[in-house]
Amino acid sequence: MKPTFADRINDVPRSFLREILKVAVRDDVISFAGGLPNRALFPAAAIRAAADAVLTSDAGAVLQYGSSEGYAPLREWIAARYRARGLDVAADDVLVTTGSQQGLDLIGKVLLNERDVVAIEEPGYLGAIQAFSIYRPRFAGVPLTQGGVDIDRLAHVLRTDRPRLFYTVPNFQNPSGVTYSASRREAVARLARDTGTLLVEDDPYGELRFAGEAQPSMASLAPAHTVMLGSFSKIVAPSFRVGWLVAHGELMERLVIARQAADLHTSEITQRILYRYLGDNDIDEHIRHIRDCYGGQCRAMLDALAREFPAGCRHTEPEGGMFLWIDLGGRSSMAVFDHAIANGVAFVPGHPFYTGEPRTDTLRLNFSCSGADAIGEGIRRLGESIRAIDA
Amino acid sequence: MKPTFADRINDVPRSFLREILKVAVRDDVISFAGGLPNRALFPAAAIRAAADAVLTSDAGAVLQYGSSEGYAPLREWIAARYRARGLDVAADDVLVTTGSQQGLDLIGKVLLNERDVVAIEEPGYLGAIQAFSIYRPRFAGVPLTQGGVDIDRLAHVLRTDRPRLFYTVPNFQNPSGVTYSASRREAVARLARDTGTLLVEDDPYGELRFAGEAQPSMASLAPAHTVMLGSFSKIVAPSFRVGWLVAHGELMERLVIARQAADLHTSEITQRILYRYLGDNDIDEHIRHIRDCYGGQCRAMLDALAREFPAGCRHTEPEGGMFLWIDLGGRSSMAVFDHAIANGVAFVPGHPFYTGEPRTDTLRLNFSCSGADAIGEGIRRLGESIRAIDA
Repeated sequence: MKPTFADRINDVPRSFLREILKVAVRDDVISFAGGLPNRALFPAAAIRAAADAVLTSDAGAVLQYGSSEGYAPLREWIAARYRARGLDVAADDVLVTTGSQQGLDLIGKVLLNERDVVAIEEPGYLGAIQAFSIYRPRFAGVPLTQGGVDIDRLAHVLRTDRPRLFYTVPNFQNPSGVTYSASRREAVARLARDTGTLLVEDDPYGELRFAGEAQPSMASLAPAHTVMLGSFSKIVAPSFRVGWLVAHGELMERLVIARQAADLHTSEITQRILYRYLGDNDIDEHIRHIRDCYGGQCRAMLDALAREFPAGCRHTEPEGGMFLWIDLGGRSSMAVFDHAIANGVAFVPGHPFYTGEPRTDTLRLNFSCSGADAIGEGIRRLGESIRAIDA
Repeated sequence: MKPTFADRINDVPRSFLREILKVAVRDDVISFAGGLPNRALFPAAAIRAAADAVLTSDAGAVLQYGSSEGYAPLREWIAARYRARGLDVAADDVLVTTGSQQGLDLIGKVLLNERDVVAIEEPGYLGAIQAFSIYRPRFAGVPLTQGGVDIDRLAHVLRTDRPRLFYTVPNFQNPSGVTYSASRREAVARLARDTGTLLVEDDPYGELRFAGEAQPSMASLAPAHTVMLGSFSKIVAPSFRVGWLVAHGELMERLVIARQAADLHTSEITQRILYRYLGDNDIDEHIRHIRDCYGGQCRAMLDALAREFPAGCRHTEPEGGMFLWIDLGGRSSMAVFDHAIANGVAFVPGHPFYTGEPRTDTLRLNFSCSGADAIGEGIRRLGESIRAIDA
C-alpha cells in the first residue's frame, strides 16, 4: 500500500548536501564539502578509559533508562561552565538533548504553529531550516553582513512580521563563518527586548575561537529573551549525540514533555562516558589544541585563496569555527561545482542555505578536515575551475 | 518573557507516571510501578569489552558523525534476524532510531495530520499515546480482550473512522500483558488489507516469551500494510537508546527526511558497541536467561495473586514480557493506590492508559524488577490494601 503522508513532511527540503557528500567521498576528490570535526583530534584513548571506568563502577545505572532532563551531574557541569563565563544558569535550566539538532526540533515542536514566522540569518544553518520546516512556518530571511545580521532589516522583520523567534548563530556561523560584533549583539538584544522576540542562540562553535576576542553571549544581554543551544560534537566528539538546551520555567516544562514523547531521553551511557571524560581530563587544554589546529588550517585556506582565486571573488575571514564563505561575484556556483568535481575538489554551493530567493553565486568551504597541503592543492584546483568558467 | 506555545504541545498529557515513579522510589516501598528491565541482567562485562574493542580498533569512525539510516552492519544484523524468522527484510528496510520511542514520533510526523484518526488498543501503550498526541490526532480506542484486540470493534473503527493507522503491541502488551492469538492476528491482518489500513506493529518484548508458543508477526500476514518497530532496550540495555523501524519505499524515504531533521542520527558509538557485543556474544543464550528470570518472577506474582487477592479481582496471565493487568472489579484504583503507598507498595493505576473514557478500576503491575520474595510481600500488602478499601 502507498500511505498518504502528512502535509508537513511534503515541505521539508530534501538534503541536497547528502547528494553532494556522496560525490565528495571519491578518493581523488579533495573535499571542502563536509561539516565534520577533524577525526584526528578525537580524544580516543581518554574516551576509551572513561568508558571502561563507568562500565566498571556502576554498570547497572549506566545501562538502565535515564532521566528525560539528562544525567544530573552532566547538567550541573554544563551549568557551571556557563556560570564561569558570568551567565546565570542552574542545572535545572539545562535539558540534555540528542545532539543540538534535537534541541531545534523540540523548539519547533513547542513554539511553532503552522504559518508562524521564523526569522533566520541568510545564509542560514541548514539543520535549523530542516528542523523548523517540519512545523510549516514561513521563514523571514535576514541577510548577514560582515559584523553580523543586518540590523535594519532585522528590525523591520521583527516589527512587521512579528516572528515567533529569531534563530541566530553569532559565533563563526555555519555556513558563512561570520561572527557578530559586540555592538551588533547589543543591537540584536535590544531589538529582542523591545519587540518581545525570542532569540534562539545556537553556539556549537563558540569555544573554537582562534582569532579576535570573545564576545558576550546574547543570553548575557537579553537573558529573559534567549534560549541557548550547545553541543559536545565539536569539542569532544559528534558520535555521542549529546547536546543541550538552556531554557527556563514554563518553556522548559513544555520542552521536557516534548522531549519525552520524542525519544524518552538521551543515551545514558554516552552521557556518563562524556561526564567521566570531562572529569578525568583537561577539556580546556584539549579545546586549545583543536583551536590551534583549525586556526592553522583556516590560515592555510586564506593564504591559498589570496594566491589562487581570481579578481571579483570575495570571502569571509573567520575568527573560529570550521567554515568560510565565498562570494563568486556573479559566477554560477553550480557551474563552478560541476567543473570542480571533475577537477577533483568539492564544496557546497550556497543556494540550499537560503530560505528566500537564493543567491546562486556563493559557496561554503570547510577547512577543519583537510591538512595544509591538501588545502593548498584543493584551493588551487578550485581557482582553476573558477577561471575555467570565466574563460 | 512568557512565550506563546504551539497548540500541539497543549494537548500532550503530562506524564502521570513520572509523578508516581517519584513516590515509588522510597526505600520502604516495593514498587511494581516501573517499566524497567532488570538491571541485574545487563551484560555489563561483555558491553565493557565491546566498548573497549571498538574504541581501540577504529576510534576515528566510531567517534565521528554517522549515517541517518544507521550503522550499516547493525542494519544488516537486524534484517538478518527477521529473515531467520521467515520475514522478508533487507538492510535498506531498517532505519535505526534513537529508541523505538523515536520511531513512534517519526511515524506521527510523517503520517498524521491534525484530526486524523489513530486506532489504538485500550488500554494502550502510554509512550505511543504521548508521541502521537503531539500531532493532534483523534484516538479511536479499541478494547483488548483475552486473545487480543476486539475484532468486531476494530472492524467497526477501521470501516467507520478510517484511521490513518492502527497501533498494536501484539506480544505481551504494555500495559496489559495480553498476547494476540493466531486467529486474532489473521483477523487483524485481513482487516488491514480489506480496509487499506497501515498497521504499526510494536514488538519490544517479542523475544521475551516464557510460556506458550510463538505467534506470527503481523508483518508476515500483511507485509505490505505493516511497519514494524523493535528495540534493544529489553534484550540488551535501554541506556543505548537504540531501536529500529522497518518500512519500505516512499514511506522509508520520508521517515529518513524526518529523522535527519529530528536528531541527524542515532549515536554512532552506541550502535558500534552494540554491534560488537552482538558479534562477540551469544545473544540468544542471553535472551533465554532473561526469559527464565522474568518467567520465574511472573509465576511468583501469579501465585501470590491467587493467594492474596480478594474475590472479584481478575488478572491477565502473561506469556512473556514484563507486565500484567489487574481488573479490580469495580473498586477504585486511585483509592487502592493511596492506601497501598501508605502500606509500602506501588503500582500504576490504569486510567492513563485509556485514550477514551478511562476505566477507573484497573491497574498495571510490573514483575521484571523485583525478586520472588519482594513480589510475594508486595502482593500481600496490595491484597491487604484492596481488602481495606472493601471494608
